[in-house]
Amino acid sequence: MTNPKSDRVRAVRALAQASVRARRGQFLVEGPQGVREAVRFAPEQVRDLYLTVDAAQRYPEITDAAESVSLHTHLAAPEVLAAMSDDAQGVVAVLRHRAVGTDEVIAARPQLVALLHHVRDPGNAGTVIRAADAAGADACVLTHGSVDVHNPKVVRSTVGSLFHLPTATGADLAETIALAREAGLQVLAADGSGDHDLDQLADAAEVTVAGGAAQAGDATGAADSTEGPHLARPTLWIFGNEAHGLAGHERDLADAVVRIPIHGHAESLNLAMAATLCLYASARAQRHAHR
Amino acid sequence: MTNPKSDRVRAVRALAQASVRARRGQFLVEGPQGVREAVRFAPEQVRDLYLTVDAAQRYPEITDAAESVSLHTHLAAPEVLAAMSDDAQGVVAVLRHRAVGTDEVIAARPQLVALLHHVRDPGNAGTVIRAADAAGADACVLTHGSVDVHNPKVVRSTVGSLFHLPTATGADLAETIALAREAGLQVLAADGSGDHDLDQLADAAEVTVAGGAAQAGDATGAADSTEGPHLARPTLWIFGNEAHGLAGHERDLADAVVRIPIHGHAESLNLAMAATLCLYASARAQRHAHR
Repeated sequence: MTNPKSDRVRAVRALAQASVRARRGQFLVEGPQGVREAVRFAPEQVRDLYLTVDAAQRYPEITDAAESVSLHTHLAAPEVLAAMSDDAQGVVAVLRHRAVGTDEVIAARPQLVALLHHVRDPGNAGTVIRAADAAGADACVLTHGSVDVHNPKVVRSTVGSLFHLPTATGADLAETIALAREAGLQVLAADGSGDHDLDQLADAAEVTVAGGAAQAGDATGAADSTEGPHLARPTLWIFGNEAHGLAGHERDLADAVVRIPIHGHAESLNLAMAATLCLYASARAQRHAHR
Repeated sequence: MTNPKSDRVRAVRALAQASVRARRGQFLVEGPQGVREAVRFAPEQVRDLYLTVDAAQRYPEITDAAESVSLHTHLAAPEVLAAMSDDAQGVVAVLRHRAVGTDEVIAARPQLVALLHHVRDPGNAGTVIRAADAAGADACVLTHGSVDVHNPKVVRSTVGSLFHLPTATGADLAETIALAREAGLQVLAADGSGDHDLDQLADAAEVTVAGGAAQAGDATGAADSTEGPHLARPTLWIFGNEAHGLAGHERDLADAVVRIPIHGHAESLNLAMAATLCLYASARAQRHAHR
């Protein structure tokens, strides 16, 4: 492929637009890291794979992975890749949407889920998905009114994590909370107004786990029987809009509202930092409980 | 002030350029939150304060704070503010640089310091300064070759934290480490290649603190006498470039290299997320030790 003005190139480029993505049920993954993870973790979604000759040589792990799942690789001129995306770095993939339902996510009996409610900034949403992946969460959920998870900026800022864990979209907040609760998850809302301090919950989790483990040899039992929020329990975390947080009636839907301690003069942390701390605190407590 | 094309307006706008900032020794703070914190925490640096009539009414805390330190407030037309900055939201301040030396920062016997080495992205640098503030760190240090801390994007993403804690710039990495060590700080480098896992250090800190407190009634003593890194000790954290991390010889300068556990398939966390987790882990261990 050498013509950067061909219909095919235009069609790929057009996936930068939400309306085109929705109509075709496709989206774009740009750059070697994202494409590599897509080919490895979601090969059934990959429709087309474009690389420059240079990139094919530089990233044999991509072409090898593509070959091992019988994906055809299109070699294309650097101008073609540049015309497809400003962030291609020589590698682009077109993927089919894969709709994941909230019920599907919850039916898998997850231990840790991150829910993003009305999160609008692509970088924030992508970064929280990446944090959820790193913390070992089982899934992410985005409510209706959040940014399109297939927005190229979201996809880029997940750095492949979008393909590592199921991400349900278009969810209803109250319905998701009800489903999660039925499945035995506690629902914690992260908010600066919270009654519970994240560090104090972490302290309490350690004490309960230590006590439970010593007495019964099963720390999770101790965690389950505790009144109030407990970080070691299976948890759905709710993170609100980056500017406005969660409304009062939304916080009221949660079992508990948790704030991150602010020791200095900062008014708050940003969404991605707060989510990272919350998810890692849960991951740590859950891992201790199962040790 | 009604003329958006006046020399004064142009002079304010020009502070978006690094060369102009350096020549004049001034920088720009945009938006109500940043300006409020500048007036509250660094009034001696504020040279000029510009607000629309609307903003002056909407943010009385800014005009009140300015008045209480005898700062004159210039009322200006919305067009004037818009011409000064695209992110003014009706409020802009021009501040004088205040040079903070690394020796000054270390001489204050800090408990927790964040050092950014060759961090180039303004948003990342600003977010780490904000995280350091929230975690209760005493200071930040940026080495020579890092982004200009007075870059408007850095200032904006600190959301006022730049005025809450001293931030030394243009530092030399090896010199800063030597100074910190002389002052009794341990030096921890955050890097995915680390021998030490942050969660395991947190576990160890809890055990030592509990033991030390029970035996000697002074948990810090126990922390100080421990071999190897200990999160409760006074600490200088080193965070490297967002894309390349720290070089081997840079990591070797630290007392220990600490990695954040990755439980899922993510390859890494981004700089701001990693720094937030490290700084909060230190803050928590230090606070436990002093309880």
